Amino acid sequence: MSELIETDVVIVGAGPVGLFAVFELGLLDLRAHVIDILDRPGGQCAELYPEKPIYDIPGLPEVTGQDLTDNLLKQIAPFDPQFHFSTMVTALTRLEDGRFRVETDADEVFLTKVIVIAAGGGSFQPKRPPVPEIEHYEGVSVHYAVRKIEAFRGHDVVIVGGGDSALDWTLNLEPVAKSVTLVHRRPEFRAAPDSVNKMWALEKEGRVKFRMGQLGSLEGADGQISKVLLKGGEAGEEIIEASRLLPFFGLTMKLGPIADWGLNLDQNLIAVDTEKFETSEPGIFAIGDINTYPGKLKLILSGFHEAALMSHAAKRIVAPGERIVFQYTTSSTSLQKKLKAA
Amino acid sequence: MSELIETDVVIVGAGPVGLFAVFELGLLDLRAHVIDILDRPGGQCAELYPEKPIYDIPGLPEVTGQDLTDNLLKQIAPFDPQFHFSTMVTALTRLEDGRFRVETDADEVFLTKVIVIAAGGGSFQPKRPPVPEIEHYEGVSVHYAVRKIEAFRGHDVVIVGGGDSALDWTLNLEPVAKSVTLVHRRPEFRAAPDSVNKMWALEKEGRVKFRMGQLGSLEGADGQISKVLLKGGEAGEEIIEASRLLPFFGLTMKLGPIADWGLNLDQNLIAVDTEKFETSEPGIFAIGDINTYPGKLKLILSGFHEAALMSHAAKRIVAPGERIVFQYTTSSTSLQKKLKAA
Repeated sequence: MSELIETDVVIVGAGPVGLFAVFELGLLDLRAHVIDILDRPGGQCAELYPEKPIYDIPGLPEVTGQDLTDNLLKQIAPFDPQFHFSTMVTALTRLEDGRFRVETDADEVFLTKVIVIAAGGGSFQPKRPPVPEIEHYEGVSVHYAVRKIEAFRGHDVVIVGGGDSALDWTLNLEPVAKSVTLVHRRPEFRAAPDSVNKMWALEKEGRVKFRMGQLGSLEGADGQISKVLLKGGEAGEEIIEASRLLPFFGLTMKLGPIADWGLNLDQNLIAVDTEKFETSEPGIFAIGDINTYPGKLKLILSGFHEAALMSHAAKRIVAPGERIVFQYTTSSTSLQKKLKAA
Repeated sequence: MSELIETDVVIVGAGPVGLFAVFELGLLDLRAHVIDILDRPGGQCAELYPEKPIYDIPGLPEVTGQDLTDNLLKQIAPFDPQFHFSTMVTALTRLEDGRFRVETDADEVFLTKVIVIAAGGGSFQPKRPPVPEIEHYEGVSVHYAVRKIEAFRGHDVVIVGGGDSALDWTLNLEPVAKSVTLVHRRPEFRAAPDSVNKMWALEKEGRVKFRMGQLGSLEGADGQISKVLLKGGEAGEEIIEASRLLPFFGLTMKLGPIADWGLNLDQNLIAVDTEKFETSEPGIFAIGDINTYPGKLKLILSGFHEAALMSHAAKRIVAPGERIVFQYTTSSTSLQKKLKAA
């Protein structure tokens, strides 16, 4: 049985803009649940540069991504946001009463009047190499990340790529794997020179192999590869015995399932108006880096502005006909009471 | 001789939004001069509520107007903004080369490619009572504020109004004036009860007079009033001997000379687009509380967003054809160098 949660607003994305949306919605008495694919709040900001300073948040001359996140969590605490981390939205349907039904991979079902997409650049996903039927081997013998080193013990591992991930895992898996073969188009790498030197040293000792070439095709059965066929190398085609393949072709930002929600997209961004930041689907808003409109700049501070205007439009959907009294936190005692209630 | 100053941008208004505009322009290597009618930075924010907390600046759960101003001054310091306080723009003309010539009452002349109006609600000005020819007496015997109490010593003072200003000055001028007459439409006041009680006590002692009624007309010559005629009181018309008149009819926000710049206005606000926040006059932008567009909310955080998008448009005017590289302060070492240069 799925858990059923009724709410005013579901926010997809717990980055700074999603967090601040809780605040602006809260000022208007709208309750929000926040869903994020990551296991903690902060989004890209806390994930990619937790300790690096940001200089262009107005009124904060220098703040780290983590501190900005912490400040925002403190700011929205009075509104008691409900977080659902490590969770992905898997299905979205509109009900006959106009509300949305939102399902997640954590077996929750939300019934909500408003959806706010604040998903930043989407979710980071590894790029899939252009190899026929590679998807049949994924998760069994083809991996895009190393979660547990033990899973590679005793295996014939082929690593493809020329960046830090490829080099680092060549060095780290060499002690446990039966064999490690590094494959790259050319004998130059975009990786830390120290790692490159170490790899060449191991190669000289015969402890790792290096092959110039590109991924051609795979052989195997039931998800288990047995051979990797290379092409474009010095020796033309080459066949390598392999039981594990690690292709590091970089990361790409994917919109994920949001791409299937039927919204108007513009180069993988969600087109919105500049009055309400509403998408082509009434009741679904998009704010922050994931949206686009004339003049758009991917700045956190723009997402904050978008959150404020979105919230007023959301209020009109959740409480149609109710007069919105525009109040300032500095002068309104009723807003101050809300903020102090925490 | 006026001082001639050439610059990229003139910002009118040193409130939080005008200050942050210096930052966004600075990131794009645009130099700005900032003009404000007040004698210090911070605008309304520091003027009206320097010590009152603001709760809705993203990432600053609670900040006073003064602290926000101070933070912004620190943030823009690397760009060495040039401030011109206690200064009003008096004339604006467009030159043949497309630049603007901006004149101020401080005898400065700016030649600039871009003007940014960040003037908030405009300037606070007292409301003028609807009395024929009152303007002939203003500044001589009719005043809308008390700058120096001594200027009222020995005078027959008539004070009109029912708020705190009227009551306070009745109490404060009574000891120095020859006579004080308070005039209001009715014997009830929108003022601190304590002040009202004190006034009635003085009235009972015969030290101040109270008259019910409204300002009718004035008699006098060469700026000096001699009589104030009241109407609508219990006794019908009444004539009061007076050498000083203090009408307190409240304050109004006036656009000031900006109203004469030929920009498209909408209820005393400046209409702008949401891509560049440019007015109907190319090269003149309006950001913050003074502008209007569909969805507009008068929030400081919206002004910050507007400042960012405006700056990119301003860059295209100042350096046409130059490619704008959109950089993040977190990752761009060249931006970081600029910010650390202070």
